[in-house]
Amino acid sequence: MKIAIIGAAGMVGRKLTQRLVSEGTLRGATINSLLLADVVASDAPAGFTGETVIQAGDLSAPAEVEQLVAARPDVIFHLAAIVSGEAEQDFDKGYRINMDGMRHLLNAIRAAQAADDYRPRLVFTSSIAVFGAPFPETIPEEYFHTPLTSYGTQKEICELLLADYSRKGFVDGIGIRLPTICVRPGLPNKAASGFFSNIIREPLVGKEAILPVPDTVRHWHASPRSAVGFLVHAANLDTARLGPRRNLTMPGVSVTVAEQIEALRTVAGEKAVALIRREPDETIMKIVAGWPTRFDASRAEGLGFRADASFEAIIRAHVEDELS
Amino acid sequence: MKIAIIGAAGMVGRKLTQRLVSEGTLRGATINSLLLADVVASDAPAGFTGETVIQAGDLSAPAEVEQLVAARPDVIFHLAAIVSGEAEQDFDKGYRINMDGMRHLLNAIRAAQAADDYRPRLVFTSSIAVFGAPFPETIPEEYFHTPLTSYGTQKEICELLLADYSRKGFVDGIGIRLPTICVRPGLPNKAASGFFSNIIREPLVGKEAILPVPDTVRHWHASPRSAVGFLVHAANLDTARLGPRRNLTMPGVSVTVAEQIEALRTVAGEKAVALIRREPDETIMKIVAGWPTRFDASRAEGLGFRADASFEAIIRAHVEDELS
Repeated sequence: MKIAIIGAAGMVGRKLTQRLVSEGTLRGATINSLLLADVVASDAPAGFTGETVIQAGDLSAPAEVEQLVAARPDVIFHLAAIVSGEAEQDFDKGYRINMDGMRHLLNAIRAAQAADDYRPRLVFTSSIAVFGAPFPETIPEEYFHTPLTSYGTQKEICELLLADYSRKGFVDGIGIRLPTICVRPGLPNKAASGFFSNIIREPLVGKEAILPVPDTVRHWHASPRSAVGFLVHAANLDTARLGPRRNLTMPGVSVTVAEQIEALRTVAGEKAVALIRREPDETIMKIVAGWPTRFDASRAEGLGFRADASFEAIIRAHVEDELS
Repeated sequence: MKIAIIGAAGMVGRKLTQRLVSEGTLRGATINSLLLADVVASDAPAGFTGETVIQAGDLSAPAEVEQLVAARPDVIFHLAAIVSGEAEQDFDKGYRINMDGMRHLLNAIRAAQAADDYRPRLVFTSSIAVFGAPFPETIPEEYFHTPLTSYGTQKEICELLLADYSRKGFVDGIGIRLPTICVRPGLPNKAASGFFSNIIREPLVGKEAILPVPDTVRHWHASPRSAVGFLVHAANLDTARLGPRRNLTMPGVSVTVAEQIEALRTVAGEKAVALIRREPDETIMKIVAGWPTRFDASRAEGLGFRADASFEAIIRAHVEDELS
């Protein structure tokens, strides 16, 4: 079993790598090769006895994805993306990385299939940003996709390409729309959603965090641990069960900021909660107002994808995985 | 008022040109220039006293669309496409013309805006092929788009790009999802939907037509006259009324093949109906089974788009426009 991870140096990529190394198998076979691709060089995973190949390069360049596909990985996880804030600021870069990168990857796979019948499982991370307001408080499975950001547009286009290339038999694709990942460890990135994690992660280590939106804001979350679980489950799933609808909304935990704060109080007490400083930011409020709050994810649940049990469970997973 | 039509040599393009010439104005201004672009040279319209520019070339080439945009048309109608059957057979050509062509056009417009604040109205013809079975008998306005053909995928991607470039202010776009055009005059093209027109058009002139599907097949139709009406209305519409959802399902007439045949009997009698020969075709039946049958088009109706009154009215429009 040869696995490639595109976007391996990112937070989810690193956690996925760790999980694959610790499990040792995927799709019932021993993992004997890991190809870790990103724009920067990924760290070689500790404790892995198989072959590790580190590929550093801009994966929006056709030659880079052709090199990756030349290794004929059985499973490719495509996690790489320019985040929403950056894709909004740099229009060309967003389209180049988030859309053209996917297309180059799909075309490289298709060319390899023409050569030797190659047809890998491709697990693509999409986003709930494919939805755009106004929408009902709970978004149905069959609700339409009208993104309000370039990032959401690019993710939706990737979903469409993935489904069409899969329908034609060029690839065995599955797209999973991740909830907002919370609690995101490490330093903030450029995502406008950063505060959802900041207000938990920072107070847990005695640091102040800024809350730029009202307590009433409701959002849809999954822990990094769940996100990695979704990816592994997507790699293992029998895609015949998907039919031509290859893209799935992942289950998540729907909570208000007030409920996030209550869960923090339960886990870490009043002292932690007191470190959240309210500093309203109109720009972030406006962006967040266009985001979904809750989904019907029954299709993914029926296929065995499992969300965190509660927001408190999300915080406890963070404490176990990052602070112990 | 300077107008460009991409796909001007096609059936709808020629009818749109005629209509614009006969009306003489668009958006309240006199039309003084027509730029007719297509892969083949369009005929210069009779009776037009303004400037006519004929551009023949492959509009999936960036230089071709840049030349078109260099003329700074106030309104651009983008009707050009590889049809569904051909896009399914020639995967690369479909993506090159139907998707890359649109992207080059949008990028050329954006570059022109950076140069001199150019921001034209762009009317794009999408298709009900953006929907994919299974779906309810009447498809709601907010139903999701899961195309089952490469053509439908490409049209949906164009809709997404149109909405994102419009949202960013690079263009003033509106996408209209045309019903199947019926009765299509002239010779059959490569579309699998051809029989819907053949069984009306051919018997009306005493010729035999082949019906490859059962009488119970229901579909969604608009006359060429209505389609041109939708295009003109889309060019005139105040797009502030659209908000960020720039793509609209056009109203149509939902009838079964049996109802089509009854309307033919009413208009042209038993002798015409007797010219329809049933010759079941599994391939066409399978394609058509994935097509929508009826839509809620109340959003477009609320914006003033008007369908034909009945299938009989569609046939009578054909007789008036083509056979008189």
